[in-house]
Amino acid sequence: MADVKNILFIMCDQLRWDYLSCYGHPTLKTPNIDALAQRGVRFNRAHVQSTSCGPSRMSYYTGRYVQSHRAFGNFVPLPLDERTLGDYLRPMGMRVAVDGKTHAEADIASMRLRGLDPQSFLGVLSSEAGFEPYDRHDGVLVDSAHEDLARNLYTRYLKDQGYGGNNPWLAFANSGADAQGQVLSGWSLRHAQSPARVPEMHSETAYTTRRAVEFMKEQGGAPWCLHLSYIKPHWPYVAPSPYNSIYSASDVVDAVRHPTEKNNPHPILDSYHRHEASVSFSNDEMRRTVIPVYMGLIKQIDDQLGELFDFMETQGRWGDTMVVFCSDHGDYLGDHHLGEKELFHDTVSKTPMIIYDPSEAANKTRGTVNDEQFVEAIDLVPTFVEAVGAKVNPDRLEGLSLLPLLHGKTPTNWREFVINEFDYSFRTNTRIELKRPIKACSMITLRDKKWKFVQCEGFRPLLFNLLDDPHEFNDLGASPQHQEVISHYSLKTLSWMLSRKRYTTANDVYVRDWLKDDRFSGMQIGVW
Amino acid sequence: MADVKNILFIMCDQLRWDYLSCYGHPTLKTPNIDALAQRGVRFNRAHVQSTSCGPSRMSYYTGRYVQSHRAFGNFVPLPLDERTLGDYLRPMGMRVAVDGKTHAEADIASMRLRGLDPQSFLGVLSSEAGFEPYDRHDGVLVDSAHEDLARNLYTRYLKDQGYGGNNPWLAFANSGADAQGQVLSGWSLRHAQSPARVPEMHSETAYTTRRAVEFMKEQGGAPWCLHLSYIKPHWPYVAPSPYNSIYSASDVVDAVRHPTEKNNPHPILDSYHRHEASVSFSNDEMRRTVIPVYMGLIKQIDDQLGELFDFMETQGRWGDTMVVFCSDHGDYLGDHHLGEKELFHDTVSKTPMIIYDPSEAANKTRGTVNDEQFVEAIDLVPTFVEAVGAKVNPDRLEGLSLLPLLHGKTPTNWREFVINEFDYSFRTNTRIELKRPIKACSMITLRDKKWKFVQCEGFRPLLFNLLDDPHEFNDLGASPQHQEVISHYSLKTLSWMLSRKRYTTANDVYVRDWLKDDRFSGMQIGVW
Repeated sequence: MADVKNILFIMCDQLRWDYLSCYGHPTLKTPNIDALAQRGVRFNRAHVQSTSCGPSRMSYYTGRYVQSHRAFGNFVPLPLDERTLGDYLRPMGMRVAVDGKTHAEADIASMRLRGLDPQSFLGVLSSEAGFEPYDRHDGVLVDSAHEDLARNLYTRYLKDQGYGGNNPWLAFANSGADAQGQVLSGWSLRHAQSPARVPEMHSETAYTTRRAVEFMKEQGGAPWCLHLSYIKPHWPYVAPSPYNSIYSASDVVDAVRHPTEKNNPHPILDSYHRHEASVSFSNDEMRRTVIPVYMGLIKQIDDQLGELFDFMETQGRWGDTMVVFCSDHGDYLGDHHLGEKELFHDTVSKTPMIIYDPSEAANKTRGTVNDEQFVEAIDLVPTFVEAVGAKVNPDRLEGLSLLPLLHGKTPTNWREFVINEFDYSFRTNTRIELKRPIKACSMITLRDKKWKFVQCEGFRPLLFNLLDDPHEFNDLGASPQHQEVISHYSLKTLSWMLSRKRYTTANDVYVRDWLKDDRFSGMQIGVW
Repeated sequence: MADVKNILFIMCDQLRWDYLSCYGHPTLKTPNIDALAQRGVRFNRAHVQSTSCGPSRMSYYTGRYVQSHRAFGNFVPLPLDERTLGDYLRPMGMRVAVDGKTHAEADIASMRLRGLDPQSFLGVLSSEAGFEPYDRHDGVLVDSAHEDLARNLYTRYLKDQGYGGNNPWLAFANSGADAQGQVLSGWSLRHAQSPARVPEMHSETAYTTRRAVEFMKEQGGAPWCLHLSYIKPHWPYVAPSPYNSIYSASDVVDAVRHPTEKNNPHPILDSYHRHEASVSFSNDEMRRTVIPVYMGLIKQIDDQLGELFDFMETQGRWGDTMVVFCSDHGDYLGDHHLGEKELFHDTVSKTPMIIYDPSEAANKTRGTVNDEQFVEAIDLVPTFVEAVGAKVNPDRLEGLSLLPLLHGKTPTNWREFVINEFDYSFRTNTRIELKRPIKACSMITLRDKKWKFVQCEGFRPLLFNLLDDPHEFNDLGASPQHQEVISHYSLKTLSWMLSRKRYTTANDVYVRDWLKDDRFSGMQIGVW
């Protein structure tokens, strides 16, 4: 009998690892998330598998690296033969649902070909990366009346509160207004400090948290896994009052950047330096405007989690629920002369990861920080599966169960590096500038405790010595003295690629035992 | 309007490229297949993608290399998100069916997960590699009464003719009898020359051909693609009278082998030399017993095809039907001290490939031999798709349409090498002897006009200079003078691997145009 009955899998979008007080931010205070860390383990070497929302999330949900699950970009469907968290946990009798964002896309072509009705229950699960869409909402990027209200409950909620128009998500929850009541679109970073045009209770973060409470109430004593997936602090950087003004310019930490980073940079970096978000976030006035709001959005999440955690206390859920807090990737915020995410720096690939395990075996690690082991987003699926007493599928899952670490065991043969894969084919301007074919824009980053090696299709690699240069200012990829290190890491990356779990329709047991199959009981080959 | 309305896709199992008179066999006469070559093009550099039935066939059916379609061994299901010939041709209004063998396996786990009933029409198509199982039969390897007669029409046919017992396929169609009427099992090679216990008309090859005639009659004028897929000359090497005795020991050509091949061979070859089939076929008495029957089985196929081709003549089918003749791999028959197939020599990876195109554009190539271009099994799907006027899907298909070659055009940038992938994990004895993990038994062979390079997971590669050593006797894989060639070919193999079409849920158009999608019409990122 497992000690873990339920799983609360909390994710923020675009939350940097270092924007929480428990991870060392000097002025942003996140006491509720810090308290979770006190109850569990805070991992200090946690990395995501991609620095873009969609592929990173699909790695979280499948327990597989990007080239294995194959959803290599945002809005790229997970192929129909992939398996997700829901496929592993649902057979254990758990309700597996999402409240918030997933970036899941339906593989409609395959569904049609196989006769799977997208509207059927199984069709919906396949479309939603295995989650029951209890209240899925990813934000509304469309500037017209196309939005399907039946499927976007948060937009419907806003309309029910009287926030009208084509897109109340943008016009009210993610925009401000000037003194004359003119709308200040959340798409313009200069409007960041204006409060959202909804009171805090109607904001996305508060709504999403309330829905989590409702879900838990609905479940009563029945087991569940809820993916509570906040869209914030992802852009639009607009916060409801008072969170728009809790922090000010004096709370903004300096950008981690060095002028030499712009001297003859790697061609991909050179192109990224010219992106509009990079230029914007290189402007310190802009950073002083936006970052306090980014911090306010995180503060709001922390406050909301405080309420949720209190509710869980009243229900006794801390006794039977594993709670995870993580993020899908970071945000450059001007570091390295860059804005937004993507690419490879720790700024974007390192994320917070806090895990509370209610079981007695975890008592000895409560409140500790794991500075030693590299953990990856793909580790959550096997951790959850093992925590609820199911069997980890070794033929598909590429992550490692973190239960041994949570239970204070010193693992042998733990991974020595983490992997981040990013494909810039969707970055039209960079792809065209660099004259790259769509299918040849891949970057694979292998990072261990000393080196970060970035293999770039069609270009020289990048290399950083993290011991001498922890901020990754000095790219050694073109250094003649480092060609031996580069060869060594090229081979390591290759060997990693070759050992991916691509072959999922015949597992080791099947291969080992095929001759024992009754179907071949009569066969003899080559007998004279 | 395409000139090709129907496709007759004929395959033999385990037919060597050099066991047809048009390919140069000195005594085996195959006038009907030769006549097909006279009507079309005979390719003299045709190679399959794997030297094992299942993976080779799945490459033929998907138009993709083994590591792309992922059915890496016999009895390994094609993943549910793969597409096959049937998926491409059926939307063109063609009936796409199989008569004979496919080795297709159902991905039952994925079908269950996605709610696809294996008994439904779509479920059956998914289970049968996209073919309607008009009369699928792969042979009956089970030595008991398990066989599902509803699905194995040939066994049912035999029972209807009065051939009883658990397995009439083995006991009658694939076994002989001694003078006392005692059954001589077809599993023993020493029984090869005894005639089958059924008259020729009830043998597998004759039955399968008749079923093709019935299919064409049923279709009348409606368009079709029929995969006429003979199990023969695959073992059991048992032929019905008179084909068991048409050829004799004097017709058996010498084995292509050299004593030095057994001096300190590569560890994988060393293990294969000890397989029972290798030991048997290294015995010349055994070769003289079995090979005449192997030849007789081919002769029977040729005679049967003669009848089928005559029938097609009466129906006017030569005016609207593309006809292909090929094989899934060869048979060592004692060459290189080996029996059976698998591995990498041209003996098993090179196959016959003859294509008749009824269109006028093909007139200028009729009766020619293409000695120049490398063609691969994966080329048939794009050839068929283009021939019937459908659009070739560039995001999944890895083969090249052969229409330009059939129409006498000189292609630019044609492929310079062929690839064969083989995984010996299913070869239990070799895998255990060599102490290889199940997931680490891959061999990839890259063959161009000069070199054959075989990359072996966990072992040194093999290398042959085909210009100096066309019979592949002299493995240069350990030669210090060839390390530069080896490095070059290692990189070439790697680069080939990296360019596989793994990402099938978002094509180039999707990536190029995503920003034009209405869903993102309102989005702005990083604007100050």
